[in-house]
Amino acid sequence: AMNKRIAVLAGDGIGPEVMEQALRVLAAVEQRFGVTFKTDAADVGGAALDNHGTALPRETVDLCRESDAILFGSVGGPKWEHLPPEEQPERGALLPLRKTFGLFANLRPAIVFPQLVHASPLREDLLEGGLDVVVVRELTGGIYFGTPKGREGDKAFDTLVYHRSEIERIARVAFEAARSRNKRVTSIDKANVLTSMVLWREVVTEVARDYPDVELTHMYVDNAAMQLVREPRQFDVILAGNMFGDILSDEAAMLTGSLGMLPSASLAEGSFGLYEPSGGSAPDIAGKGVANPIAQILSAAMMLKYSFGLDQACQAIFDAVAAVLDEGYRTGDIARPGDTLIGTDEMGRRIAEKV
Amino acid sequence: AMNKRIAVLAGDGIGPEVMEQALRVLAAVEQRFGVTFKTDAADVGGAALDNHGTALPRETVDLCRESDAILFGSVGGPKWEHLPPEEQPERGALLPLRKTFGLFANLRPAIVFPQLVHASPLREDLLEGGLDVVVVRELTGGIYFGTPKGREGDKAFDTLVYHRSEIERIARVAFEAARSRNKRVTSIDKANVLTSMVLWREVVTEVARDYPDVELTHMYVDNAAMQLVREPRQFDVILAGNMFGDILSDEAAMLTGSLGMLPSASLAEGSFGLYEPSGGSAPDIAGKGVANPIAQILSAAMMLKYSFGLDQACQAIFDAVAAVLDEGYRTGDIARPGDTLIGTDEMGRRIAEKV
Ligand SMILES: CC(C)[C@H](C(=O)O)[C@@H](O)C(=O)O
Ligand SMILES: CC(C)[C@H](C(=O)O)[C@@H](O)C(=O)O
Repeated sequence: AMNKRIAVLAGDGIGPEVMEQALRVLAAVEQRFGVTFKTDAADVGGAALDNHGTALPRETVDLCRESDAILFGSVGGPKWEHLPPEEQPERGALLPLRKTFGLFANLRPAIVFPQLVHASPLREDLLEGGLDVVVVRELTGGIYFGTPKGREGDKAFDTLVYHRSEIERIARVAFEAARSRNKRVTSIDKANVLTSMVLWREVVTEVARDYPDVELTHMYVDNAAMQLVREPRQFDVILAGNMFGDILSDEAAMLTGSLGMLPSASLAEGSFGLYEPSGGSAPDIAGKGVANPIAQILSAAMMLKYSFGLDQACQAIFDAVAAVLDEGYRTGDIARPGDTLIGTDEMGRRIAEKV
Repeated sequence: AMNKRIAVLAGDGIGPEVMEQALRVLAAVEQRFGVTFKTDAADVGGAALDNHGTALPRETVDLCRESDAILFGSVGGPKWEHLPPEEQPERGALLPLRKTFGLFANLRPAIVFPQLVHASPLREDLLEGGLDVVVVRELTGGIYFGTPKGREGDKAFDTLVYHRSEIERIARVAFEAARSRNKRVTSIDKANVLTSMVLWREVVTEVARDYPDVELTHMYVDNAAMQLVREPRQFDVILAGNMFGDILSDEAAMLTGSLGMLPSASLAEGSFGLYEPSGGSAPDIAGKGVANPIAQILSAAMMLKYSFGLDQACQAIFDAVAAVLDEGYRTGDIARPGDTLIGTDEMGRRIAEKV
């Protein structure tokens, strides 16, 4: 029987309380699917800064290295906002984790469950029947890590650099994803201005030849920022570099109006990956038992699929979430009059029961 | 009496027909305000590619140099899309114009006239009472023009570089704009990842000390892309570098739902500037007499204010547009049942008459 080791990094804010619910749902998966998970917790983010003086302690990295996947909560909060930007919990934990573990492929679904169309800031007619877009973002290259990067007198600079091989492997992730979806990839670039993006367009076009069943469109990033707002359902898979993907995945997430619902996966070559909610640590509601645990629970579901190959178990969790929504249960962030308002714990329990 | 010279670059697609209406409104301004404008036309964009083999012929640059301002239409279309991205009409005309004339400050208002709230893709409650945001974008620096930029083997790269003085002068434009508006500046950066953006944040913070009456907030670009969708009215002046400003100004423009209404100004030090609609050349409707000329007309209005100091004449045009909208007249792009649908020519005539 399958026996997987999971590094559990709950982090700050609502991280610990929503993580508890994700672990509860994983326990239900163990029972139903006859698998076992060994979970080990470690400090990360602000909690780690407080306890170890760094957002990503060596012990935490070691634990991740011994594990088959990382289930990540969320990090950051007002307590650490006085620190220089590069030492803050988010930056200080996420960037080194991505680089250390080669997590080059970030998958961020922007899903509007049909039950939650009203939560979107968009007019309802633009989302009729829901929305299902995934942003595939390159996560270990581009201007985030390019060198040289620094200061010289009164100037400061960063380098946006892409190697053909980096573009190729992230493009393949996007085309593979499109194959199991609606077979459309929109590749984002700024080839009219940036040399690196001319190469991006070239390589993506080459990779597309191996996927004749998938339709490829190229779109400038500024136009994409418009089109997402104008007609989000025109997209299936959005493929983008690190910086453009950062911006567009957040824009797409907000279009759903329910950040508390959105999971994400950051994948290495092979089966290792880090899974985390798209939203933040929400310090304002932390500890009150009202946070929506669904993003964390669906992040665990993505882990089952992408790192452990348990596609059925993943689907079972998504179905369980939909079933609980169908019954009218909502946490505060997605509730409206007439819904049954429940807390973090009850939402987790109900989903676990359905699994 | 004032006598100004205007280089008129109508360009492609709907450019010529909406430009005709802007010139008509300028003629009305001449009459009412006792000023004279000398207008000279020159080729630009696709039309220039066809006639001179380049999107920005020397003659056109020379004319602009002898003029007090450039009134620009729009460029581009399917006919020239087979060209390499860097030779295409938009890229080939706009970037050299910006650099040659030092047009470092791009002002792009995202205005929702209260009469047109329904055109927005956002829920009406998010725009109650309209929207009035302006994006102040740095236009001659950053990753657009930074060097080195090129290819080396299987790699391609661009450089994002900012000099303290470039940040300072664009920040001053933003703070000055805020002073005559709602006294809030949101400065966009990615200081948690980019060294150039750490400098950006530093310099903007310094400049803010000279404007104690203006409230400054710093916001990461990914968060800004979200906040624009979530609650656009939280913004007054958005200050951003070239690339981030490109993306966010387009996103903000689309939130209004009426691109055909939005003007823009690109200013040099001193009084020279280029004025153009925010939307594109709309080749699909070109030549049909149905295009909305308001963006072009309001671009001329911005020229009167920023290059000629004719604030009253600028205001007269904005008022004329509002009056015509109040009477229920609409071009197709902003019409809905019950409105009086009119064409490009009639819209221009009615606005000119009100002036
Ligand atoms: C915290 C920050 C460094 C990070 C990024 O920009 O990648 C975050 O915005 C994200 O998208 O995960
Ligand atoms: C055409 C292109 C080079 C240009 C830009 O990126 O600046 C355009 O998108 C704009 O915003 O004016």
